[in-house]
Amino acid sequence: MTKRKICVVVTARPSYSRIKTALTAIKKHPSLELQLVIAGSALLDRYGNAVDYIEQDGFKIDAKVFMVLEGENKTSMAKTTGLGVMELATVFYNLKPDAVVTIADRFETIATSIAAAYQNIPLIHIQGGEVTGNIDEKVRHANTKLADIHLVASNDAKARLLKMGEDADYVFNTGCPSIDIANVVRESPELNFNPIQKYGGVGKHIDWKNGYLVVMQHPVTTEYDEARLHVTTSLKVIHELGIPTFWFWPNVDAGADGTSNGIRSYREIYQPENIHFFKNMIPEDFLRLLVNSKCLIGNSSVGIRECAFLGVPVVNIGTRQHGRARGENVIDVSYSSEAIKNGINNRFEKAKVIKQSAIYGEGNSGEKIANILADVKLRFHKTISY
Amino acid sequence: MTKRKICVVVTARPSYSRIKTALTAIKKHPSLELQLVIAGSALLDRYGNAVDYIEQDGFKIDAKVFMVLEGENKTSMAKTTGLGVMELATVFYNLKPDAVVTIADRFETIATSIAAAYQNIPLIHIQGGEVTGNIDEKVRHANTKLADIHLVASNDAKARLLKMGEDADYVFNTGCPSIDIANVVRESPELNFNPIQKYGGVGKHIDWKNGYLVVMQHPVTTEYDEARLHVTTSLKVIHELGIPTFWFWPNVDAGADGTSNGIRSYREIYQPENIHFFKNMIPEDFLRLLVNSKCLIGNSSVGIRECAFLGVPVVNIGTRQHGRARGENVIDVSYSSEAIKNGINNRFEKAKVIKQSAIYGEGNSGEKIANILADVKLRFHKTISY
Amino acid sequence: MTKRKICVVVTARPSYSRIKTALTAIKKHPSLELQLVIAGSALLDRYGNAVDYIEQDGFKIDAKVFMVLEGENKTSMAKTTGLGVMELATVFYNLKPDAVVTIADRFETIATSIAAAYQNIPLIHIQGGEVTGNIDEKVRHANTKLADIHLVASNDAKARLLKMGEDADYVFNTGCPSIDIANVVRESPELNFNPIQKYGGVGKHIDWKNGYLVVMQHPVTTEYDEARLHVTTSLKVIHELGIPTFWFWPNVDAGADGTSNGIRSYREIYQPENIHFFKNMIPEDFLRLLVNSKCLIGNSSVGIRECAFLGVPVVNIGTRQHGRARGENVIDVSYSSEAIKNGINNRFEKAKVIKQSAIYGEGNSGEKIANILADVKLRFHKTISY
Amino acid sequence: MTKRKICVVVTARPSYSRIKTALTAIKKHPSLELQLVIAGSALLDRYGNAVDYIEQDGFKIDAKVFMVLEGENKTSMAKTTGLGVMELATVFYNLKPDAVVTIADRFETIATSIAAAYQNIPLIHIQGGEVTGNIDEKVRHANTKLADIHLVASNDAKARLLKMGEDADYVFNTGCPSIDIANVVRESPELNFNPIQKYGGVGKHIDWKNGYLVVMQHPVTTEYDEARLHVTTSLKVIHELGIPTFWFWPNVDAGADGTSNGIRSYREIYQPENIHFFKNMIPEDFLRLLVNSKCLIGNSSVGIRECAFLGVPVVNIGTRQHGRARGENVIDVSYSSEAIKNGINNRFEKAKVIKQSAIYGEGNSGEKIANILADVKLRFHKTISY
Repeated sequence: MTKRKICVVVTARPSYSRIKTALTAIKKHPSLELQLVIAGSALLDRYGNAVDYIEQDGFKIDAKVFMVLEGENKTSMAKTTGLGVMELATVFYNLKPDAVVTIADRFETIATSIAAAYQNIPLIHIQGGEVTGNIDEKVRHANTKLADIHLVASNDAKARLLKMGEDADYVFNTGCPSIDIANVVRESPELNFNPIQKYGGVGKHIDWKNGYLVVMQHPVTTEYDEARLHVTTSLKVIHELGIPTFWFWPNVDAGADGTSNGIRSYREIYQPENIHFFKNMIPEDFLRLLVNSKCLIGNSSVGIRECAFLGVPVVNIGTRQHGRARGENVIDVSYSSEAIKNGINNRFEKAKVIKQSAIYGEGNSGEKIANILADVKLRFHKTISY
Repeated sequence: MTKRKICVVVTARPSYSRIKTALTAIKKHPSLELQLVIAGSALLDRYGNAVDYIEQDGFKIDAKVFMVLEGENKTSMAKTTGLGVMELATVFYNLKPDAVVTIADRFETIATSIAAAYQNIPLIHIQGGEVTGNIDEKVRHANTKLADIHLVASNDAKARLLKMGEDADYVFNTGCPSIDIANVVRESPELNFNPIQKYGGVGKHIDWKNGYLVVMQHPVTTEYDEARLHVTTSLKVIHELGIPTFWFWPNVDAGADGTSNGIRSYREIYQPENIHFFKNMIPEDFLRLLVNSKCLIGNSSVGIRECAFLGVPVVNIGTRQHGRARGENVIDVSYSSEAIKNGINNRFEKAKVIKQSAIYGEGNSGEKIANILADVKLRFHKTISY
Repeated sequence: MTKRKICVVVTARPSYSRIKTALTAIKKHPSLELQLVIAGSALLDRYGNAVDYIEQDGFKIDAKVFMVLEGENKTSMAKTTGLGVMELATVFYNLKPDAVVTIADRFETIATSIAAAYQNIPLIHIQGGEVTGNIDEKVRHANTKLADIHLVASNDAKARLLKMGEDADYVFNTGCPSIDIANVVRESPELNFNPIQKYGGVGKHIDWKNGYLVVMQHPVTTEYDEARLHVTTSLKVIHELGIPTFWFWPNVDAGADGTSNGIRSYREIYQPENIHFFKNMIPEDFLRLLVNSKCLIGNSSVGIRECAFLGVPVVNIGTRQHGRARGENVIDVSYSSEAIKNGINNRFEKAKVIKQSAIYGEGNSGEKIANILADVKLRFHKTISY
Repeated sequence: MTKRKICVVVTARPSYSRIKTALTAIKKHPSLELQLVIAGSALLDRYGNAVDYIEQDGFKIDAKVFMVLEGENKTSMAKTTGLGVMELATVFYNLKPDAVVTIADRFETIATSIAAAYQNIPLIHIQGGEVTGNIDEKVRHANTKLADIHLVASNDAKARLLKMGEDADYVFNTGCPSIDIANVVRESPELNFNPIQKYGGVGKHIDWKNGYLVVMQHPVTTEYDEARLHVTTSLKVIHELGIPTFWFWPNVDAGADGTSNGIRSYREIYQPENIHFFKNMIPEDFLRLLVNSKCLIGNSSVGIRECAFLGVPVVNIGTRQHGRARGENVIDVSYSSEAIKNGINNRFEKAKVIKQSAIYGEGNSGEKIANILADVKLRFHKTISY
């Protein structure tokens, strides 16, 4: 029997982490053949080149595509996307997949969608139907409209896609595959490594053994100029609190420089003695760090998804996760010092009573995804349902 | 007072014809400044280079962008789009418009949408909300999801956009500006030129003065291989009918070669004595030809829109216009000879009772569009409404 | 032993024909591995898609790259080249060849050169050092300056490269591999097929059995507007002569439309009864047609190279082959009717005394090329020799 | 009278500095109109966005083109160039210049050359004919072969172009316009600013008032992996010497990370008390710093050109400037500690007897260039001279 060739395009390291258990399940599935394309910032050293990790995980990469324009501004985001369309079109033409998988809502994911849809290759979109309220929102829903088959992460998302006119036969709630790794961690949650020894990082050598915070705050794309102000406010709050803290640098996006420079300046000027900075961590370690922390602060989707599943308290700042379904672990706050401080206190109080939630899946999404990819009727022609 | 700079991107000659009265109204509006970008097949001789017409109409072109890849296949459509994103991003970066207008649903229109949306330039989409059921459908709805402001052509389309989660404050039914020219023709409908003398064309010199048909049949993109069969069936039917007929070559699209080659072969082998072939005609002349014809046959959107307004009988073949709101002038038929023949007979019978319809506007869309562009609150940030 | 991976990029069907025996020899060589990339017009139907021929010849294609922009104008030539650089860079990055081969001087060949040279992949240029005097001239010498190793077709070319400052250790006169096929034909020259039966073509069914002419006239790129005039002049001369003639359409280049439209118009208006038109022919058949003809007329490089080897009389029109070393088979004439007529008469007179010449090789270039590719020291760093 | 439109493309900040007096002279010339295109790294903040400087200098920028791919590797260099060809082709098509000027030999300058040459726009190359011996060497000579008119900086360079087959009527020795600024400095050489106060920089606050060194060491492209070793060796030598030193970070190139990271690490680990680091300086200030220094160390072309004119002693390390004509101010040394130390000592000894040299011009190159651009017969068609 000929196997279905499923081409997955990974354009950023966090996307790889999120999708990894699905890749493993596709690779193992007897009637599927995995074609893996690594592109965009996933190839770049300064965002943590994902290639080494991917190869260590045992995956063969079928094509690599450099496509990120310099500038970290909005013009370069557009041009990166255009370049991606052109080159991914060639890649798909040469690999001849039976279906292409595009992941979530980063700006360049629409390049995968166009390159597949325009060549009449059935397009599968993972993690549509969510709501956040910035450029990601436009990209995510445009991906939905280009896609033929939808694998969403929550019932909330599924309901939204149906309202948008998608055909119920082609919308599947698989949960989020990022929860699969969280599941492993939930089953044996001990912090089995020394973060600073294993990952280095910069900043003071904090004493984290009696409790610590984790911060991960990304720039919000359409609020470019405020990125620096936002991150500086958060830094001041955490610095003043004095609790040992692991702080993670943001991924690249337009605005990264605002946030990154904000962090860099604060560090150089104030040298906060209670904060240690990391670039990144393998996902399992990161989740283990979270599950043992007192609270996650920032605006990462990890706070909304994995932390719901793990029951980790989260102070979610600002609009970046706006509209995504939440577990009871999250409190939403504005960008002000006052709001952030109150949020942290609130989470400390409630920590005991937060329950783990399955709104983003139960830890077996990878397999669910592979099974659907093997069984679903592939199509590349659709009409809105109303 | 600084004028609002409205950048309109025209990527195909038919789009120019459709939007022309809006361009004129924008140019004349005291608080608007028109920036006109001509790109894609609108620049190419073999699709009827639109530049001369545009300049004769008194418009200044601010930038021209060659972006069409050769091949007329699906891969080249994707790559054309990617190239368009990259270059239009540069054009917008240099022209600095206050808003960008993208038109309808041709595959490359999404390039305009991405280049504007990703640079946080308010994006206005004209003619969203319609339903057709091929790759255009995906493109049109993806454009909607990238756009901030929607100028639709019918109440039907407006209702659909609201269902899709667009904000009612930003969806306007302006009617279709193509109706504006139809309005001029409706007011003085005489056929004031000799088509063959004025436009040449190829084929027999038919005697059209006692009644004639018009045919315009485009390939349907996702049914590439059948394009030739479809057009040949229609040619046989019209040839056998023996009624004098003006037949228009299709525009370019993937599949054009199927249709074009079908026409070319049939012409060379059978030399049908009742058919004269044209490449194109200026819109006003074309509408005048239609309003004096016995029937329009094929799958052009002109049959659905302008002919509804003009009350011209239409035999609409196949799926290309599937889902667009219809006046009573249209009968839908399949691709079979029998169905086409029956359709034509049916239209001959009903011709007397067909009423003119305003479902696609009343002939003042251009001005409506300009006024909205001058007054609407521009935004580049939106959230789905549910 | 690891084989040297030699990546050959073919961007046009005539280049494939010319290089074919070298490809075969590389494929067979025990210490070489052939990587074959097909790009540009070699993939396009209207220039005679080369893919089927290449696969019938037993070659596996490692990557295909669509890169030709529509327009057939100078802007699209530039953009095609830019697109080629980008995509071929990705192809080489993924294929990881030990050396890349770029062929001759078509405008897009510099894309191969840049994509290889900039990635520090040793670049081998075939057929440098010749002189022609149009845009090809600039491209050819720029290719030379980007290349590390030079395989030229004549002593004349070799001498020129040394003057240009190339290192004598890296310049090899291999002869032209196109001569290898000519060698097969020279050994058994009978016309063993019926051209019209085998290739169809358009135009009158001429009686070629008692002697015929062959014409192949390409546009000269930098004299765009004159292309049509030139070809029309030649058509009139040949038409008036009345000798049965096989006329070959030109390849694509900027200006193709001038030449092609000139031929098309002349054919439609005058329907010359002594001319039959072909799009193309497999090289061996073409050479067989030439060796049995009375004379080749036009400006093809075949007249300069293969015809020198075969001893076929040639009337070479205009500047296109200016500066290439000639055998005694060639007479050069201007674009005027008078000059062309005189040239043909002159060749008829001299036909008996023309000797076969080895200035472009002896029929074993393919093997010579493969052996050099296996043995040469690969380098990607060079300095001009003065 | 219609002015000649001269389009100058600047792709890097150092190129702007070098060409600035020519831009001024073109702008002032009564029969020339300057079209200025800023592209590539000249637009990027991390290489010192040149736009502000250019606008402060009173120039209007006609188009800006983002084209730098991320990665700082060889693949991204190739793709940047390809993107540049495509976009600059569009820019030239829209600006319609009478001639295009491309500057020197950075990898992306060939994009300008191709975009102009392929569109039959006369191409003027500034600073051809020099010899250095890395990828720049290939690019520079390929630019020469694409260019129609050559404005070189020395007699040495002129002689080389003639040997390469260029037509003597189109090769002009104008000297290097960078010398024009050096001329201003030579006439009033006092150090009229405090470098650390004016430019900040990082590192210790050195006492430079009693004599100091300047270092500027760029990575050598084709020796990527050694870049870090080379710069570390130089750092150790200078650190041990203990003389106050101003050290300038390199520009971007593939390999920049090797050099930059080498500097960054050394600084963090050893915190050399005698070295202060700068990113960049306006050219006039930089030359003033040099003319008052004891010696320039590194591999910058400033050491070869401006320092010859100014009579500043230079220790030139390694191969980067290999083959460029030298004044007596330069001593060439290898990358070893020993060689560098000896070189510095040698320069200290010889400092008194070094004479100023005019091999790269006399300080009026900008005007010479403008006059030639106004008077030269423009052509876009050339043939090699042998």
